[in-house]
Amino acid sequence: MVQATALPRNEGGIETVVGILKQQFGDRLQTGASIREQHGHTTTYIHNQMPDAVVFPESTQEVTQIVKTCATHHVPVIPFGTGTSLEGHVNAPAGGISVDMSRMDQIIAVQAEDLTVVVQPGVTREQLNTHLRDQGLFFPIDPGANASLGGMTATRASGTNAVRYGTMKDNVLSLEVVMASGEVIRTAQRAKKSSAGYDLTRLMVGSEGTLGLITEITLRLQGIPEAISSARCTFPTVDAACRAVMMTIQYGIPVARIELLDEMSVKAANDYSKLDLPETPLLLLEFHGSEGGVSEQAEMFGSIAEEFGGSDFAATTSTEERNKLWQARHDMYWAAHQLRPGAKGISTDVCVPISRLAEAVTRTQAKAEELGLLAPIVGHVGDGNFHSLPLIDMESEEELAAVEVFVSWLNNMAIELEGTCTGEHGIGQGKRPYLKKELGNAVNYMAAIKAALDPDNILNPGKIVEM
Amino acid sequence: MVQATALPRNEGGIETVVGILKQQFGDRLQTGASIREQHGHTTTYIHNQMPDAVVFPESTQEVTQIVKTCATHHVPVIPFGTGTSLEGHVNAPAGGISVDMSRMDQIIAVQAEDLTVVVQPGVTREQLNTHLRDQGLFFPIDPGANASLGGMTATRASGTNAVRYGTMKDNVLSLEVVMASGEVIRTAQRAKKSSAGYDLTRLMVGSEGTLGLITEITLRLQGIPEAISSARCTFPTVDAACRAVMMTIQYGIPVARIELLDEMSVKAANDYSKLDLPETPLLLLEFHGSEGGVSEQAEMFGSIAEEFGGSDFAATTSTEERNKLWQARHDMYWAAHQLRPGAKGISTDVCVPISRLAEAVTRTQAKAEELGLLAPIVGHVGDGNFHSLPLIDMESEEELAAVEVFVSWLNNMAIELEGTCTGEHGIGQGKRPYLKKELGNAVNYMAAIKAALDPDNILNPGKIVEM
Repeated sequence: MVQATALPRNEGGIETVVGILKQQFGDRLQTGASIREQHGHTTTYIHNQMPDAVVFPESTQEVTQIVKTCATHHVPVIPFGTGTSLEGHVNAPAGGISVDMSRMDQIIAVQAEDLTVVVQPGVTREQLNTHLRDQGLFFPIDPGANASLGGMTATRASGTNAVRYGTMKDNVLSLEVVMASGEVIRTAQRAKKSSAGYDLTRLMVGSEGTLGLITEITLRLQGIPEAISSARCTFPTVDAACRAVMMTIQYGIPVARIELLDEMSVKAANDYSKLDLPETPLLLLEFHGSEGGVSEQAEMFGSIAEEFGGSDFAATTSTEERNKLWQARHDMYWAAHQLRPGAKGISTDVCVPISRLAEAVTRTQAKAEELGLLAPIVGHVGDGNFHSLPLIDMESEEELAAVEVFVSWLNNMAIELEGTCTGEHGIGQGKRPYLKKELGNAVNYMAAIKAALDPDNILNPGKIVEM
Repeated sequence: MVQATALPRNEGGIETVVGILKQQFGDRLQTGASIREQHGHTTTYIHNQMPDAVVFPESTQEVTQIVKTCATHHVPVIPFGTGTSLEGHVNAPAGGISVDMSRMDQIIAVQAEDLTVVVQPGVTREQLNTHLRDQGLFFPIDPGANASLGGMTATRASGTNAVRYGTMKDNVLSLEVVMASGEVIRTAQRAKKSSAGYDLTRLMVGSEGTLGLITEITLRLQGIPEAISSARCTFPTVDAACRAVMMTIQYGIPVARIELLDEMSVKAANDYSKLDLPETPLLLLEFHGSEGGVSEQAEMFGSIAEEFGGSDFAATTSTEERNKLWQARHDMYWAAHQLRPGAKGISTDVCVPISRLAEAVTRTQAKAEELGLLAPIVGHVGDGNFHSLPLIDMESEEELAAVEVFVSWLNNMAIELEGTCTGEHGIGQGKRPYLKKELGNAVNYMAAIKAALDPDNILNPGKIVEM
């Protein structure tokens, strides 16, 4: 495991706060080791730094009460959704209180006429979509995991549908937030657009719990399309596949999903999901629209693909076939692990301008090979975002060293290509050094904002910026 | 004219700074009364508060030099684009230096493969679109005026295309900004999406020059659609028109523009643009897509319109007819003034959830009538945003009093309906009291951010927040 830096602990304050909250929350304050460990960071290679207690509020008022108590005694507060983040976001490097939002799981109001919904932060995206289905509506952001909408907002999540529907930044209209003092604010009204002062909504989206605790979210919804079709197409090289993607985007074909699997990922998918795809680079696509629209989109893509040597192009509107294909895509994380049983996948998340994508993916494959790493690649290529997942033996010092070189090389390459070290996973603990490389002195202004809004640094300390 | 509050002037500092800048910039520093007046606020009802000098930098380095000089002597710096803002954004209530960006008008790079462009802030949207046309690309945000892209970014502008392409917040990828200290930052890389820390890009978009001076902008572009068609349809009532809009949006028809003109606006358009539209509420639409796509969209809209009593539905792909229709829409500001020659139109800009739109427009018409005001309405109704333009005799105390009651009533109504006092014009000087009504204590956190990033309050003081 990679060690995350520990920060100084305020032992006295923590003890006092745990005592006060225990009185107020009874069984909804837990201090057992296993629940604390589960609320530290478990899904990545970053070492677990458990909080001192986990509390389960049921209302904004209770969150306020928790934050005020922690503020009084200068004790860290770490919001927790479902724990599926990948960069150490929920670790407690200075100890403190994990605020588990899972009991704040009410869908407060669906405004179907406005295509908006108001939810509490513990609602998961699958729960929301199940609730909406009967009304012909859906929430499009899909990061893969059944994450909580609070966590998705806090990390500016996106995923496979972002090429058409944008990321969380584009789909959050307004937030209720408990600030470091315990004061509650609302960042915006429910109108679809606004020029009313600084964009506090977008400042909170992606702030990873370091500027406030999100207690209510107003989201934009979409109507379920009349028709959905999916397609797949194999390509002779990653370069050819990326060029096809670029032209698809330039032509303004409104693809809903366009995902790349490299050769190694296709092999993993074949093995794991019992498919028989040709083991060369593959694009998986989804089209949303009217019956006529989706077939037109598929046809246009088909012509583009052909131009770049694409073959085995197959489009389908069959729900069953579509589900099978996308299930295989969603299972890629597990499928990749089967390429090397017992190994641990180290997630990466670079995103580059689409014109640099082919180069970036090709160089990444070569670098992994040079370092002797098995590292399949999948990508949300319509956005220029891809994940290389080196599979390593966590007991091997040599492999740990190699993966460290690889990750560092990869992030630096993305930055050199005018891209980012993180398209959708966030900074957390893991990427703080790269944030500085990427944005330089702009990070000082992030720190100034953090200091202005959380002067005692109690909100998720040790994430994004140094204090 | 409505008086804007004057702020204390730092006479000594101003004199020193004007002297230093005169030496450095020579003729590119102007102090004549007429140029200063033209750089104070001229396009609205708000009283002109002229700066002490106007300087014309030609590079980021020169902007840095100006800001550093002003910072040293605690003198206000007010960025200026084309002066088409409507809420007193470029007024100088404490005097100071207006920084006219018109000479920073270079299109630095077009990255056609990425659908991005890098521009200096003085580039206007028409200049950009003329430059892009040969490459089959366009920049979709159209606020009506041929505004500068720096000004559009600073005020989070939008306009008629926003229903499909979003506002400036959705179309700015990255900014270079000169901060209050004179330090230059870059807010993001050029990747299409990113989770790299706080969203400084979106914080700067809409900050109206109060957090930094924008010196370079990376924008998202669109491919010019294969086909464009436009349509018009008249409705028996505003309510019926709004309901048709609501259903159009719910059905996911990707209209590029959907504009409402109320009865009085149609009359004005008929008179001014020599049209013969039936004088009842009218929707103007534009569809972008493939040949098949736009005719399908028009057909679907036609069916919806019919359901709500729409008549005289006419769609066309003729460029000439389309231009005539949209020219009439763009000329509405002038056309409205012809309803009452000599009168001054007072712009308003509320935006509500679309389900409340019919009610909001209908109540606004009734209120204007009750107050004896002639106030035609046009609206970007796909976003719930509309402008009522009371036409008043600025010499009449009675009318000035009535319009004050009207504007206040209108903004409060929008806020009550979960909407905003400003969909796209911004806060500036004019709407500061309403910002507080709308967002309450959240405004204190805006002030905290302002204080953190501009501790001496030299950047466009007296706008958005109080210091």
